[in-house]
Amino acid sequence: MSLVKDEFAFIQSIKPAYTFREELIQGIGDDAALYRIGSDWDEIACADTMVEGIHFKKSTLSPFQIGRKALAVNISDIAAMGGIPMFYLVSISVPQTGWSSKQLKEIYKGMKEIADDYEIDMIGGDTVSTRSDLHIAITVIGKIEKGRKLLRSNARAGDIVFLTGPVGGSAAGLSSLLKGEGNEAPYVKYHQEPSPRIKQGRILAKSGYRISLNDVSDGIASESHELAEASGVSIILNQDTIPAPEGFDAYSSFQRLEWMLNGGEDYELIGTVAEENWEKVVELFEAHDEEIYRIGYVEDKRTSVWMNYKDQKFKLDKKGYNHFSSKE
Amino acid sequence: MSLVKDEFAFIQSIKPAYTFREELIQGIGDDAALYRIGSDWDEIACADTMVEGIHFKKSTLSPFQIGRKALAVNISDIAAMGGIPMFYLVSISVPQTGWSSKQLKEIYKGMKEIADDYEIDMIGGDTVSTRSDLHIAITVIGKIEKGRKLLRSNARAGDIVFLTGPVGGSAAGLSSLLKGEGNEAPYVKYHQEPSPRIKQGRILAKSGYRISLNDVSDGIASESHELAEASGVSIILNQDTIPAPEGFDAYSSFQRLEWMLNGGEDYELIGTVAEENWEKVVELFEAHDEEIYRIGYVEDKRTSVWMNYKDQKFKLDKKGYNHFSSKE
Repeated sequence: MSLVKDEFAFIQSIKPAYTFREELIQGIGDDAALYRIGSDWDEIACADTMVEGIHFKKSTLSPFQIGRKALAVNISDIAAMGGIPMFYLVSISVPQTGWSSKQLKEIYKGMKEIADDYEIDMIGGDTVSTRSDLHIAITVIGKIEKGRKLLRSNARAGDIVFLTGPVGGSAAGLSSLLKGEGNEAPYVKYHQEPSPRIKQGRILAKSGYRISLNDVSDGIASESHELAEASGVSIILNQDTIPAPEGFDAYSSFQRLEWMLNGGEDYELIGTVAEENWEKVVELFEAHDEEIYRIGYVEDKRTSVWMNYKDQKFKLDKKGYNHFSSKE
Repeated sequence: MSLVKDEFAFIQSIKPAYTFREELIQGIGDDAALYRIGSDWDEIACADTMVEGIHFKKSTLSPFQIGRKALAVNISDIAAMGGIPMFYLVSISVPQTGWSSKQLKEIYKGMKEIADDYEIDMIGGDTVSTRSDLHIAITVIGKIEKGRKLLRSNARAGDIVFLTGPVGGSAAGLSSLLKGEGNEAPYVKYHQEPSPRIKQGRILAKSGYRISLNDVSDGIASESHELAEASGVSIILNQDTIPAPEGFDAYSSFQRLEWMLNGGEDYELIGTVAEENWEKVVELFEAHDEEIYRIGYVEDKRTSVWMNYKDQKFKLDKKGYNHFSSKE
């Protein structure tokens, strides 16, 4: 299924010069990758795709950032399970015109940069041509201590809701980019170069507590709905306690809230833990010099998500981030 | 990264009602899939993409066949490692127009059919929209007995070259389809519904012999080149011994040979084993009621691929199957 012109040379050019994982037996260069896992770990696999014109445009991300982000959002899914990312496979569909070999190499360089940060190895993939838009479909495989399950379905009444960092920055940055304000506009880096929260997920995994967890890919309203639905509980967020990026109060409260609740692509972690374990979780995060915020609580009511603001309570819809419309 | 309209309902509609693998802890329904592997196995992961207009058209494959084949070609990569397929992740990019919800469900039904044949579980993926052609990117994860490596680089001088079944049928079938001869024309099923050779790969893996192995996705000329290059040897094929589908001699010898050598998408296995172990391999295949053909031998010469025909020897180029040109 390989069609890109001179694919062999291209694959050689993107093939890693070294690998990190001792588990790796055979990486790129055969029909499939081969690796060995000891008996102390469970494993994690996830797949996420980025499509030109839908998730990015050449005007919103550089080729390097496209590659970096395509892998980052997959690593973020491993973080949302509390896992350690290990390997990734990249299936790229390259348009027959419009993308130079240099740009394609930049995409892989972007992936390599973040892969190096997390010490993960590319172990396979596919390179095909397409008549239309660039597609990058990535699978990441990771591991976690046996039996640790940081699932969406773990939330219980009495839990507190936490968030690992500010939200809304990615949507604000994208808005600036789409207005043509350029790469130096505020918050643009939130959109272009998100950081998956592996370290934070690991703290939560190693705490041993019952924890429900999601990464904020679709906005905290939507992610809270997913936790509430999977666990059969009601989630109440306290508006005043949700962290925003520095300087965000320059925006109207409506705009700010829209981005924070529904913007998405922030890749912080949102989850719940029993009230009695919250102080200990805060201590663990402080000990690792990482942020964590208490932003709400869980009630034993019909599945729903609410926002407390002053004396009022609003019901939050499950809106997600809509990327670009097809008409743009 | 999820954009398809009413994605939740769609995922619910394609979510498997049951799972096979006891290793599975968490499948579809969280950020990522979670599974547990014992300590007796190595693991295998591979990714392969099918793109509308490049690898298939609506006139060459039904939606059901598109899904079935997209998974089949990935399972074939596991077969080419001698492995047991276990799990798959599907990233599908759906055009904003031109594909009905019914057709999309048919695609997943096709995957499910072959997944059931091989008892493998869908454990994740992504569903996104695209402005253009349908893309299906699949990752399959499998396992194999620890330390067994059926790699391309295993060929040695003195080995014989084997093939598990006839080649050329897929290209002949596609040719009929492109001429508008319809789904009942000869050989069409070779193209539309290939069978990955997991059982044959398992016989070879369990034999314990040193074996090099590839699946015939790009034609036996190209696959032989891959074996020769990875192993640093010369491969010589004997034209008269290469099996063709029944009735193939109705075609001109030129046409027949072109399809057999360069057609591709046959998904038989081609490989090498030491001459001294060949008889035992034949016995094992006979015991399992499976076919295997001796079609050539390996020499300790500069990396190259040759064809013996009567008293002559021709050098074979590394031509692969070219699917559809962009002009069609």
